[in-house]
Parts: sequence; structure tokens; C-alpha cells
Amino acid sequence: MRPFLAHPFDDDKLKEECGVFGVIGVADAANFVALGLHALQHRGQEAGGIVSYHPDHGFNSARRFGYVRDNFTRADVMETLPGAIAVGHVRYSTAGSKGATAIRDVQPFFGEFAVGGCAIAHNGNLTNAAALRRQLIERGAIFQSSSDSECIIHLMARSMQKTLAERIKDALRAVEGAFSVIAMTRTKLIGVRDALGVRPLVLGRIGDGWALSSETCALDIIGAEFVREIEPGEMVVIEGGEVRSSRPFAPAASRFCIFEQVYFSRPDSIIGGRSVYETRRQIGVELAREAPVEADLVCPVPDSGTPAAIGYAHESGIPFGMGIIRNQYMGRTFIEPTEQIRNMGVRLKLNVNRALIRGKRVVLVDDSVVRGTTSRKIKDMILDAGAAEVHFRIASPPTAWPCFYGVDTPERSKLLAATMSEDEMRDWIGVDSLKFISLDGLYRAAGEAAGRDPKAPRFCDACFSGQYPVAPSDKIAEGFQMKAAE
Amino acid sequence: MRPFLAHPFDDDKLKEECGVFGVIGVADAANFVALGLHALQHRGQEAGGIVSYHPDHGFNSARRFGYVRDNFTRADVMETLPGAIAVGHVRYSTAGSKGATAIRDVQPFFGEFAVGGCAIAHNGNLTNAAALRRQLIERGAIFQSSSDSECIIHLMARSMQKTLAERIKDALRAVEGAFSVIAMTRTKLIGVRDALGVRPLVLGRIGDGWALSSETCALDIIGAEFVREIEPGEMVVIEGGEVRSSRPFAPAASRFCIFEQVYFSRPDSIIGGRSVYETRRQIGVELAREAPVEADLVCPVPDSGTPAAIGYAHESGIPFGMGIIRNQYMGRTFIEPTEQIRNMGVRLKLNVNRALIRGKRVVLVDDSVVRGTTSRKIKDMILDAGAAEVHFRIASPPTAWPCFYGVDTPERSKLLAATMSEDEMRDWIGVDSLKFISLDGLYRAAGEAAGRDPKAPRFCDACFSGQYPVAPSDKIAEGFQMKAAE
Amino acid sequence: MRPFLAHPFDDDKLKEECGVFGVIGVADAANFVALGLHALQHRGQEAGGIVSYHPDHGFNSARRFGYVRDNFTRADVMETLPGAIAVGHVRYSTAGSKGATAIRDVQPFFGEFAVGGCAIAHNGNLTNAAALRRQLIERGAIFQSSSDSECIIHLMARSMQKTLAERIKDALRAVEGAFSVIAMTRTKLIGVRDALGVRPLVLGRIGDGWALSSETCALDIIGAEFVREIEPGEMVVIEGGEVRSSRPFAPAASRFCIFEQVYFSRPDSIIGGRSVYETRRQIGVELAREAPVEADLVCPVPDSGTPAAIGYAHESGIPFGMGIIRNQYMGRTFIEPTEQIRNMGVRLKLNVNRALIRGKRVVLVDDSVVRGTTSRKIKDMILDAGAAEVHFRIASPPTAWPCFYGVDTPERSKLLAATMSEDEMRDWIGVDSLKFISLDGLYRAAGEAAGRDPKAPRFCDACFSGQYPVAPSDKIAEGFQMKAAE
Amino acid sequence: MRPFLAHPFDDDKLKEECGVFGVIGVADAANFVALGLHALQHRGQEAGGIVSYHPDHGFNSARRFGYVRDNFTRADVMETLPGAIAVGHVRYSTAGSKGATAIRDVQPFFGEFAVGGCAIAHNGNLTNAAALRRQLIERGAIFQSSSDSECIIHLMARSMQKTLAERIKDALRAVEGAFSVIAMTRTKLIGVRDALGVRPLVLGRIGDGWALSSETCALDIIGAEFVREIEPGEMVVIEGGEVRSSRPFAPAASRFCIFEQVYFSRPDSIIGGRSVYETRRQIGVELAREAPVEADLVCPVPDSGTPAAIGYAHESGIPFGMGIIRNQYMGRTFIEPTEQIRNMGVRLKLNVNRALIRGKRVVLVDDSVVRGTTSRKIKDMILDAGAAEVHFRIASPPTAWPCFYGVDTPERSKLLAATMSEDEMRDWIGVDSLKFISLDGLYRAAGEAAGRDPKAPRFCDACFSGQYPVAPSDKIAEGFQMKAAE
Repeated sequence: MRPFLAHPFDDDKLKEECGVFGVIGVADAANFVALGLHALQHRGQEAGGIVSYHPDHGFNSARRFGYVRDNFTRADVMETLPGAIAVGHVRYSTAGSKGATAIRDVQPFFGEFAVGGCAIAHNGNLTNAAALRRQLIERGAIFQSSSDSECIIHLMARSMQKTLAERIKDALRAVEGAFSVIAMTRTKLIGVRDALGVRPLVLGRIGDGWALSSETCALDIIGAEFVREIEPGEMVVIEGGEVRSSRPFAPAASRFCIFEQVYFSRPDSIIGGRSVYETRRQIGVELAREAPVEADLVCPVPDSGTPAAIGYAHESGIPFGMGIIRNQYMGRTFIEPTEQIRNMGVRLKLNVNRALIRGKRVVLVDDSVVRGTTSRKIKDMILDAGAAEVHFRIASPPTAWPCFYGVDTPERSKLLAATMSEDEMRDWIGVDSLKFISLDGLYRAAGEAAGRDPKAPRFCDACFSGQYPVAPSDKIAEGFQMKAAE
Repeated sequence: MRPFLAHPFDDDKLKEECGVFGVIGVADAANFVALGLHALQHRGQEAGGIVSYHPDHGFNSARRFGYVRDNFTRADVMETLPGAIAVGHVRYSTAGSKGATAIRDVQPFFGEFAVGGCAIAHNGNLTNAAALRRQLIERGAIFQSSSDSECIIHLMARSMQKTLAERIKDALRAVEGAFSVIAMTRTKLIGVRDALGVRPLVLGRIGDGWALSSETCALDIIGAEFVREIEPGEMVVIEGGEVRSSRPFAPAASRFCIFEQVYFSRPDSIIGGRSVYETRRQIGVELAREAPVEADLVCPVPDSGTPAAIGYAHESGIPFGMGIIRNQYMGRTFIEPTEQIRNMGVRLKLNVNRALIRGKRVVLVDDSVVRGTTSRKIKDMILDAGAAEVHFRIASPPTAWPCFYGVDTPERSKLLAATMSEDEMRDWIGVDSLKFISLDGLYRAAGEAAGRDPKAPRFCDACFSGQYPVAPSDKIAEGFQMKAAE
Repeated sequence: MRPFLAHPFDDDKLKEECGVFGVIGVADAANFVALGLHALQHRGQEAGGIVSYHPDHGFNSARRFGYVRDNFTRADVMETLPGAIAVGHVRYSTAGSKGATAIRDVQPFFGEFAVGGCAIAHNGNLTNAAALRRQLIERGAIFQSSSDSECIIHLMARSMQKTLAERIKDALRAVEGAFSVIAMTRTKLIGVRDALGVRPLVLGRIGDGWALSSETCALDIIGAEFVREIEPGEMVVIEGGEVRSSRPFAPAASRFCIFEQVYFSRPDSIIGGRSVYETRRQIGVELAREAPVEADLVCPVPDSGTPAAIGYAHESGIPFGMGIIRNQYMGRTFIEPTEQIRNMGVRLKLNVNRALIRGKRVVLVDDSVVRGTTSRKIKDMILDAGAAEVHFRIASPPTAWPCFYGVDTPERSKLLAATMSEDEMRDWIGVDSLKFISLDGLYRAAGEAAGRDPKAPRFCDACFSGQYPVAPSDKIAEGFQMKAAE
Repeated sequence: MRPFLAHPFDDDKLKEECGVFGVIGVADAANFVALGLHALQHRGQEAGGIVSYHPDHGFNSARRFGYVRDNFTRADVMETLPGAIAVGHVRYSTAGSKGATAIRDVQPFFGEFAVGGCAIAHNGNLTNAAALRRQLIERGAIFQSSSDSECIIHLMARSMQKTLAERIKDALRAVEGAFSVIAMTRTKLIGVRDALGVRPLVLGRIGDGWALSSETCALDIIGAEFVREIEPGEMVVIEGGEVRSSRPFAPAASRFCIFEQVYFSRPDSIIGGRSVYETRRQIGVELAREAPVEADLVCPVPDSGTPAAIGYAHESGIPFGMGIIRNQYMGRTFIEPTEQIRNMGVRLKLNVNRALIRGKRVVLVDDSVVRGTTSRKIKDMILDAGAAEVHFRIASPPTAWPCFYGVDTPERSKLLAATMSEDEMRDWIGVDSLKFISLDGLYRAAGEAAGRDPKAPRFCDACFSGQYPVAPSDKIAEGFQMKAAE
């Protein structure tokens, strides 16, 4: 029932909920998918699954709780996944059942249709899934999981189209929200992004085969060449070594998730021709310009604050130093820990480099503030080690709105920035100063020299701005209050 | 028999073989020991054990393969370890049986003597253990493990002393080599360092209780105050809140392991009043002075090369950047992996930040070169990503001699520096330049302004110099050739 | 993938494929179901599942491989199954996927319908399932298991009826074959038997609640009173303490499976007012009359041959003795055994009581001969122990036809009696004599004083007679040749 | 800590504590030992261990909780035990630590001596072990287990003899109590029985190799020929295909455990040239003569009462029937069962064949009465099923004294027969009559036509007579009161 306990100290980050990876045209495709998922593990750490197809052995799948490296490296597992085509998925807790994930909620989902079998791996979130699910059950669908993504399979089953690729189009035209989907049939690997392109999806070439991935870092691990991003609203169907592209959805202006730049994506992934690391370093540079301070040391909150701290140190001229050391052996889970250990919280993961910090005025650079609870604890640790002053610099604007597009965010009332001003937050955290980068500064760092165009913002920044590019209809039906038009 | 397979990609580092931690005078002492061992996990990742004593329940112990956080956080395990006094141990593979560790080799070892029970946790290595073991068996001892450290228990059993503390002295006077030992009886916590003080041991205060630990970072995690180092040749006996000190061994000049500074100890630990991080950063500064180069980017080989790279960048003025990104989900073990995954080697752990590296002249800073195999692979990755030049700078002198004092080193013939000159190594690795810090430079960085005194070196540097402060008698008996006197 | 290996020595019996049990109106109903399933374990040893419903916690389920006593006695499992209504199922390998069962094939199956949730446990086999499955997939059903029984859930989803009970009727009217089904909704426990009543189903009363079970022995274990059998073609709906009966199917003459009398049912279960033990003992009496022999000892082949051997000894006057001893610690499975152990075969399970057998003329009484391989091995053991003569007496007629109604039988070509006469079987097995009870004798022992009425046999005896009361349409489509009309 | 919970319903039998098996001169000897231990599983169900020796791989061992068939059939375990010589042991909880067994208490024990390695498997109990242990610890021995049998290893270590066989003699001359020991060195298999021969040990021949076993049934399973019993006080040393016999102990009259005949040994084992089954059947015959009753049915309490019931029925002429049916899927353990399931007690294991019992006067034949709790429950079940009368006949005399020679018996105060007369027991159990076989009758059934010779009884019958052939010195020191001389 509860094979993994999410550990209780890590609830102060937004969580990307999924990573997807698929490959076609290479022997033992599932091995490549396993490696790709290992590289995408930061996008979903709770569970993973792989489906492969082999002409002699049909479709096979394996779904497991835990890390990819613990499950999908074992020869005894991988030999059950033969074939030259495979797709995989890693997930955090999705918009499924409250509480723990059941293994039946672990993707890829598979459906056997009159026209053949098809597996689907979905990154994102459908904002009308509850309504769709209700309608599908009324028409005789038997849901096996509590995952919204299963709707796609049932919509496909009801489509009258002859090919699975066309059925996928039918199904995805009926859903709302954000999705990057990788699907596979016996002979095709298919990739689709929603019209706004909220979640990422990239195409790579490996030998005579092809790969689809959430991020480029997963192409690197298998030695694939990064070819291009799948474009917002594009569907690619790869078969017999050919990539065919089509545009199933009504055209729309692209709205890529800006939080992928801030935190979700791996720093060695490439977005828009530049490494995410460089963008984050540039955020630090902008932050040093927007919010300078006199200090002795710039320290990252490891590990996600490091690139911005390097940029801040470089721009400000204040020395960069590792004032907080991360325990490398900290996993994300504990099985029924003792009370005492549960109470250690952040100390299990981070320790202050006391001899370095003592007597110094310290600038702490972190990627974001969600609930603020971790920030308080880190401040306590730093002061306890004898720091003279503590200045927080945050590499993202205040996170004041929940995400409904595939990110695990607390309810709005739990978001510190939803209830406090910047000054109130500074006092509540208890630091000498607290500054967030501006939304314009963030856009500049992400390559928009002119900052954010309020009429047509280039990114989805709903978590900062409250402006949702797709109305979250299920949530509105449940009573969610959108931001009043300004 | 083989619960854990050491993963095949990590054989290119020296390995510290043990960490020890003990606490007395606090409720649920085993919980504190678990936390301390978690902070010392880098000193031994294969297995761990804890022994505790409670007046009502006697001595209890638990020994497990795997990480501390997976075993010794569970309430069902910890509730079997009641009491206000406990000691623990983490280990890599010790000088025990070839191949895998058996659970019976996991410390602390326990002996029931006529004068009461006693548990022993040992960090270090006894250089005359084989001879001792032979003699003890001849006199009727039944060894239960293949670990040399078990000799201490049998020597204690044969001592005629009345108290366990005196028996420990007797036993340790009979052994040669390096040891930091934490022992416990029903009422005493005991710490001892060999006369040269090769391996570390520190004393901390927590409330009304006391802690002994390999490093200060483990005092931090439990909120203990760092009091002082146990001195070379010192024995402390803690009982009833009092710490009594004695000097059981013949006086000798201290020879602390310099590799603790380079690699073994955690950067946030304090040695000689300064953080290990600062010493490593200073190594980078020295290295920039000794071996400058014209370049565009200073990159650490993560994670151990980072402080030296920060120092090198600072001193040289070349920008610091994270050109290599570490996969955070890389554990140290795989259970029977597929051939393909086994062959991925370092790629599973590291990826190049390609967009940052492309076209740049890169200085790579690493902590040491052992076999050199990983260095070659990293060079390949960097060049493959389009670097213009690759310059290796190593934060330690060439490692040319094995360690016999509690560190897992390859045979001499496998050490790259034992068979090649610096130029030959450069060509074999295939980089544009390769420079190691000098032994004098390393001593300067470690606080010896005058460099190394060849008559009376302050540290044990046998792995670099071949000068062994304690003759490794078992090894010599096996045929090991010591360095000819110069 | 393969959590349990069926052990290689047990393929010489027909296997009942399922047992079902349900209870309503008692606190912690799942506990009672677990006990009932434990008593029905002989009907299915590979896996089991329980679904319960509680108003506060909804429907919950647990499915496990292995014995009921190892899974469904644990408090940590049972506390996840709260509520006053529950159904359960034990299974051998069903007519699902070739090879190993997947956990998704383990019943009860559950469907969420617009009108509420419903769980189904099915004992029997649907002879038109393949055709139904094909049609349902064409109409958009997504099958999750390879089990034929899942058709019932999809047929229910497509029914236009308002209540779940009516939908079950709709679904079961569409299927052909043998079924005893226990279903549950939030408030109702439902039992149904097919029109011929091939598989058993009985009703019991426990306090103010009710139970449905495959056999009466499972009523005994929970202390329930045996009320009556559910009649062929009857449906009972139990709700609010009331049992309402209806007859959804066209009336037909009853054809209860006669092999339940011979082997499947437990000897302490009651069928037709008499214990199965008594019927089997009577088979032995009939057999002694039909096939007498001069001998010194009557030995059962343990354990299923014991009652008939007691009857044979009593009727013949030859002493009864335990010439073959069963190892009580023999489970049914081995996980990847060594070659040597695999080859031990029947020796792991049975040993001859050598000192008793030596020099005696022995009558061995067994329940049936399927492939005959075990009979040969037992004969070898008996002769090896020094028996003077070996006479086999079989408590059922020759098994010459496969069963398609929920029993695992080899292909026809593997059945010894399908390819050999009684004399040929005797020679092949290598015994002094071999006699089967006649079909008339079996009917007499089962209470039909006049023997079998060839026009209207009271039982389904297709495995002996080749006369199938329901045409196995899927199998005929696959090429199965029914017996030519006589 | 608590890998197996002894199940709570089985405490009403005496428990043999160990079985031992060894083989020499056959390839893959450990496989044969595994099979032998499987056949001896009734002698110890909690844990098992095997040690083997191979010239290239040295001594190897495996120790596991649980059944032999679950652990020592797996190829991955067995391939770690190479070699042509091996010994094994199965155990119930021995006279080790109170409460659960630790894996370190599981035999065989192994010692590395100056003269080579030696493994020891011990069946029996040393009555002076506590005193020996104290002395050995005072002289420097480090005990690793809480098992008394470990004393043998430490006594061997202290022996001045040159060969291991001689050291075993030295060690066994120092112990008191009952023992059948199988030991192995690199080249020898050694078997020893104490001077009284309390516990069994037999010799078998397999091909060119030899086997030693607690019982003959374990020779049968590996196809070994039963050669002879090891005699009381005899030591055999098997090496190079030769069996050499010696007599290390002072001669004494044999006192074989009579409870091996009544209950411990398997019915298909041979003792004194007759099968145990035959002796038990004869006990039933004697019992029918000593304690006849008018009745309709003789029922065994399964399974151990069956042979005596067959004898009783034969001698009395009352029909034999299986009125109580045993659930074949009942294991001996539950892991943290629910309260409700714990309370089911004997019902989980036994069910009454109600239709057979109803209205009948029933003779229940059981092997022994220990606490009497199970007898009461069975009587309740039989009466609840409608029996007219219940008469208990017990195939052993009243068990009134604890055993100190390797059998797990309750304290004397918990033995029903220690506190009540036969009539009081009858009333307490609540049956119409209760009769035990007389001690003379038991001796007659065991082949002593003249009954028991009170001056020189042939068997150890201390549990019935209170006459202990070896004074239990440790127990006397703890305060145990022996029976006053008559």
C-alpha cells in the first residue's frame, strides 16, 4: 500500500511531475529508455515504467516504485523488455489518488484496441480530466487507475479512426491542459506537444534510430545527437526511419513553462540553444544588478541555487564559497522513521561549513521560496554557525499561484508569497534582507532582452503572475478563484 | 553472500575504509549514533552497525548492508537498540576477506568477557594483524570474522587486567598500525588514537552527554559542540559525565593522514581549526601559482574537485563554471546490471554541460589520479563536447604508493603514478597539459608555511612519498618492497 | 514477472481453478473472507485477492501471490480492508495468459460504473470468452487482464440497466460456460450459478450476516451455519439482512461436476447432504466389489486416495496401512531450484514406509490417473522397497477428455486414457493389475442407485464420457474435435 | 530481530529440537544435505544451515530462517556451497536465548583452529553447558551465539590434541547430557553419539560415499542405503571412503529416547529393525487391549495419531474413519496476525467431518497430552458437530516431567499430568473417558515383551517416569527439584 514514504523535509519545492523518453530503431531499445529515464530522474522520483514491443514477444511492460537505477538496470528485469521500440516514464505523485501512488497509476498506460496495441507516456496535466472521466464512465469505460492520463487511452478506444496515430489526434483534441506525450505502436514512435508547448519535448538521432525525450540531457547519456525541439502543437510520427510532422491543433502562441528554466530542467539540458546552466547563471547576474548588497561571501543553497550564486558572485565581485554542504547520501525517502530522525529535517541533508561562515556577511542564493519553511531552517543554521548577516536572494519571482499544468504545488493558502509581501516574508524568515528577481529580470535572463511583454508573454508564468494560459476548468468547478483581470 | 555489488565505475578513487561514532549520556543514544553515521557515510558506504546498552535489555546490536539512512532510521530497527550509550561504525570493504563483505565482518565487534561485555569500533588498519591472528588461533581463539579488527577483542580476552579499559590498553599495545578506536562497556565510552594519530577522532559535547566521532561534521548533525581532537596516543574514558585522559603508548611525533585533507574528510569538517573546505580551496590557490595556464574556464570534476577549482579560479582570474554535471540519483551499486548499462561507466554519473564547454579552453581540477581510467573518460567527454583545449590540474601529488593504514588502494602496479612520469601520464590520458601540486605546495596549503620538512614530516604522506611511518610488517612478510632509503 | 514457479512434480492431477467466498453483515468482513479462502486454498493455490467496502473508505482491495495464510492474516494487510462486506477469490492458473499469472489477473475484478462500484469473483470458465473479448475490444473496451472473467465487467459496463444486480444478469446472460459468481456492491452481496450448476456455491448464516462459499468447509472455519446450496440457475441478492432469490436464466437440468466428488472438494465438505469423505469411501467400497484382488495390504496414495482406500479395505477385509508417507513440509513451489533437486520429483513429497511394504502384495488406491507419470514413479518406489505385487485401483473412470469448465487439464493427447486401453495403461505403468471404477459405479457411490442414465446424466462427466453439456465454442473455433455422437 | 513468529496454536506438543545430516564422497554434497534436511524438517522447523568444503573455495556456509525447501533448493544459494563434503542442521528454538533465535545461533557452528577448520552440527542438549560457558569465558573465549552447543567449539580450541577428531573427543568428554554430533573437517566426516545414545544417529551408504543422519527417512530421500545405527558411545570417522569406529567414552547401558518412538521420529523411519509406523500401530493395539470402550468410530487426531488409531480400530473392531480433516495449507507461522485470526486457533488447522461424526460415539486417538489445551478445543469441535460421546485414548503415558536432553518442554507446572490425576484430566478436558497407555504397554509396543524393567529400563523415559539418566546439573543449580527416590 505504501511502498515509499515521501520524506517529510522536501515539501518546500515545486515538483515537476513527470519525465518521458522513447526510442525506435535500435536493438534492446528498453536499455536506452532506462538510461534516458535515469537522466530524467529529477523530473519524477517515485516510480517508473517501460513498455517495449518485439514482433515475437508482443508488448511487454515493467512498472516499479523507486529509482530507475535500482529497477531498470537489472538484467533480470531488462530481459523481459525485448524489442527495438520502447517508451518510458518517470513520475512523482501525479494528479491521481490522494496519498500514495498505486502501481496501477504508474505509466506508460497501455491499451489493446481492435487496430492494435498502443502505449502512452504523458508529461503534463489535463485540466478537464475530471469532467472527461465522468463522461467516459457513463459510456461504459472501466478505469483501472486514478490517473487523469488514462482518459487518453479511453478516448482513443472510442475514436472511429482507422490508425492509432489518428486516434491519438482525436483523443488529444478532446483534452485541455498541458501535455507532452510519447506514444508507441508496434511500428511507430509518436511525439506530441500541446498547442502552447507548456512542457518540453525534444528529438534526437541515435545511429539509424530516433529518440524523443523531455530534455536533451537524456539524449547525451545514450550518445544521441540533439536534432531539434518538437514544436508547440506539433505531432511527429517516426516509422521506418522517417520522421513525419503534422499540426493537429489550432495554432496558438507558444507559452513554454518558465519554471523549467528556473528549477525543473537539468542545468546541462539545452533550451532555446543555450544551456539551462547559462540561463540560471544569468539570473544570478540580473539579481546582483537588481538587488545588490554589501557582503563577504556568496553561498548557494545546494544544489539548485549554485549557478545563480556563481552569476551573482561574478557580477557583484563578492567571493563565491560553499557555505552549506550537502550530504551526498541523502535519499528522498524514509520507511517509517523514528520521531527523532523525522524531526532532524533539513539537517539530514545540509550542514553549514561553520569555519567558513563564522563572522561573515553571507548572501544566500536559492532558486525559489514556496512555503518558506526550509528558508527559515537554513537561516537558523547559518546564524547558529556565527554568520554576521544573512541576505537571501531568490532566483525567481515570488511563487504566489498554484500550477495546474503538471507541477505539484501546495494549495494557494500554503504559498508564502500568496499571503505576505516581500517585507513580511523577510521578517517571517528572519533575515537581514530578502529579494526576489523581478519577472522582467527573469525574462531578460531567459533571453527576452525587453523583459516580459504583458500583452503576449513568451512563457507560461502563471505561478508568478496568476495568468493562466488555459483555464483550469476542473479546478474552477471545484471552486478555485482565478485572479481578477487587471 | 553478495547482497551488494560494488559498482564497476568507481574504482578510480582511494577509499577511506571506516567511520566511527559513539555517544554516552543521552536518551536513545542509538538514534544519535545513526545520525552521526549518516554524516560519516562518505567514509564507508557498504555496511553499518550499531551496538547499544540498556540496563534492562543488555547489549543489543544491529548490522546491515547498505546506507545508514535506509537501515538505521526505521523505527522497527531503532527500537531494538535502547539505552543511553551506543557506538556505531560504517565501513567500505575492509582488509577482510577478498571479495564481498559478510555481515559477520560488519563492526562494531562485541565480546562477552568475565568482567563484562564490550563493543569495539575500529577505524584504521593493523599492520601486524595476520601474525597476531595466527598466534591467537594457536592459543585457542575462535575467529568469527575475516576482519583484522577482531584481533583486538581476542587480545582483550587474553588480558589479565581487571577492567575493560585496561584490557583495551593491553590489546592496543600489542598491535601495530593505525587506529582510532571507539569502545563501550556498560558504563563507559572510550576513545583511543594510535601514537602517530594517523586516523582522526574528535570529542564533542551534547547536553550532559559526550560524543566521539571520526569527524566534526557528525557532531554538527546531532547538534553537539566540537570540544577538541583526541590527541595522538591519547585514550579518553568517559563515565558518569567525566572525561579522563591517559597516554597508554610511547610518545611519538604526530603523523596525521594528509589524504584526509585532500579527499577523505568532508569539506565541512574542521581539522586543525580550519575547515577542510578552506584547505582544499587553498590547494587550488597553490596549484594556480605552481601550474598556471591560459584558459577560458575552470571546471571542477564533481564533487570532490570543487573547492580546489574555486581556489584555482580565484587565484588565476579565470571564470569558474560547472562544465560537468553530476547525476544526483547515481547510487554506488547495481545488482546484476545488463552489459549495456555496465558499459556506460562514467556517463551514468556525469554529463558534460555541452553548451558551456563548446569552443573553450578548459582547466579541469580533480582531487587525485589513481588508475587514471576515469580521467581519460572525462577527457573524452569534454573533447567530444567541443572543448578547444583540456588542461588537468590535480589537487594532490602523484599517488605512487599503496596505503596500509586503513585505506583501500590498488596494488602498486595499478597506480598510474607508480609506472609513469608526469609527461607520460599526460600523454596516456591525452590532455594538453597535466600538472599535480607539489608535496611542498600541499603542505603549505595544509598550513605548513615552510612546506614539508623531509626530516620530520608533519603528516603521513606515504601514498605520495613512499615513506611509511609504521613498517607494514604483514605486507613485508608477503613480499612488499618498501622504497629504498634515499 | 515470475514470482512463483509452479513446481515441476505436480502436473499429474487435474486442477480446480478457483474458490470464491463472500460475506455481508459482519464487522471486519475481510477477516472472515480470509479465513474462508484459507479453507478453500485447495481450489487455487497460486494467488488470492480480497475486495471490501466501507462507507468511509470506499472500495479497497489486496491481491497477492502465494498462500492466503501468508498474505491475508497479517494485520498490516487486513487493516487496509475495512468494512462489513467483502468478497475474495483464490486461483490456480486460469484460462488467462499462457505461462505465469500476472498480478493484474488475480481476482476479484473491480469496475467503477456510473451507478457505482462492483467487484466480481468468478469460479468456472466461459466457453465463449475469446469471441466476446474480440467484440468488446472492437466496441472500445480496454482490457487490463488476460483473464476471460474480465468480460463480465465490460459486459456490465455496456448494460443499460439501472442497478448493478440487473447489469450482472445482463452480463451473465451473454456468456456461455460454467460459472459460480460472487459479486458485491456497496450494499449487496450477490451469488449466481449457471443454469446447469456445474460449479458449486453454498449459502451460510453467521450471526445476523450471510456468507456465500464454494464449499461448506469454509463455512465451518468461520463458525457459520450451512443453510443450503444456491441452486443451478439461481441468483441470490443479499441486502439489509434479506436474501432475495431469482432465476435469470432459461431452466435446464442440473449437471454438477462429478469430479468435485472424486477429487476437487474437500472431504469434510457436504454435497447433497452427505460428506464428500463418505462418497469417496463409498467409491472404495464399489471399487472393491467391481475389482477385487488377493493382497496383504491396502495403501492409499496420500492424501487424496485415503477415503477410498479405507472403503476398499473395509469392503475387502484386507488390512489398511500407510505404506506411503507424505512429507508435511512440501510446498507447491520452488524458486529456481538446482537441477539435482528438480530431478528428485515425487521423492521430495512421498517416501515409502519400507519396513511395512517389504514382501507384501500391495493394493494402491489413488483418486485418478491423468498423465500416469506419477503412478509410474510410485510403482517404482514401492517395488524398490521390496513389495511382492502392486495392484492399482483408481477411484475414478479413465480421464480421457479435457474439461473446459474451469479445470486445468492437459491437452487431450497428454491424457493417458485418451491414447491407451486399460490393459495398455497397466503395462505402461508396469503394475500387476490396474482397474478403474466404472462410470456407473461412480454414479452409484455418488448416490444414484441406478447408476448413470445415459439419456439424462445427473452430473457433468465430460472428462470421462466426452459428452459436453455446453459446447466449448471458443475451443471448437480453435479446432477441438468433440466426440462423435454415438 | 523477529523473522518468524512461532504460531500461537502449536504449543501443545513436545518439540524435538534438532535434526542433523552429513555426507562425504559425493559431488555437490550440499545438495544431498539439503534433501536430507528436508526429510528431517519435522525435527526443527525454525531455521537451517549447511556448511560445505571445497579444496579451491575453502569452507562455505549458509544459514537461513524458514523451511529447507524455501532456502536450500535455490540454485543461487546452493552454488555458494561447493564441494564433496557437507553437514547440515535444522533446528527448532534451542536452549539458546529466550525468545527468538538469532541467525548467529543457527548451526552448524564453525571454528578455524591452528590445525584447520571444523564444522559441528549438534542434536541434543548439554546439561552442564552453563557452567562450561562460564569457565570458558573466564579463560578468554569469545562466545558468538547464545547456543550451548558453541561450547563444543571452544573446548576443541583449548584441546592440545593434534587432530581435529581427537579434539572432538576431548571436547565431548568434557560435556554432560545428550548429543548426537556430526562434524566435518576438510577431509573427514565424523559422527558421535553420547554414551547412553539418547538421540538417534544412523549411517548410510550412497555410491562410493557415506551419509550420517538423524533418521533413516533422510537416507531414503537421497537414495542412500541404510547400513546401521551409530551405537551409543561410538565415534565414526569417515575418510577416503573408509569408516573407522572408536569408543571415546566410558561404557554405559543404552537409554534411547522413547518419545522418538511415540512422536518425534517420522513414521517411515526405521528404529531397531522396525518402522516407527509399526511401533505406533502396535501402541494402538496395546491401547485397545488396556483401555477398550464401546463406540462407533475410531478417529485419529491428525496426523500424528493416525497409526495408533489404525491399530486401535483393528484390534477393537470399531470402524476407522477420518472424523477430523487437516488443512494442508497450514504452515507453522504467522507474521503479526490480526487478533481475530489469532483467536481462531486450532480451527485454522483442523475441521470436523461433521456429516461423519454426527450422532456417533467417537474414540479420538492422539499421541500425547502436554498442556491439554488442544485436547479441549478438539473435544469442543467434535461435540459441536453432534457426536454422542467422546473418548480420548492417548498413545503415550502422562507427560509429567520436562526433558533436558534436547526437547522443548514447558515448565513442569504447565504440564497437565504434573498437576492432575487421570480422572481430573478427563474432567478438565470434558470427555466421557480418557485413558493413557501404561508405561509397560508402551515398552511392549516398542518391542520389550516383558514391559519396562524398573532396575534397568531400556529407554530414556524421564518425561513419563521422572527418572533422569543424566543429572541435569545446570537446572539443578537453578533450583529444579528432581523426583525423590522411590
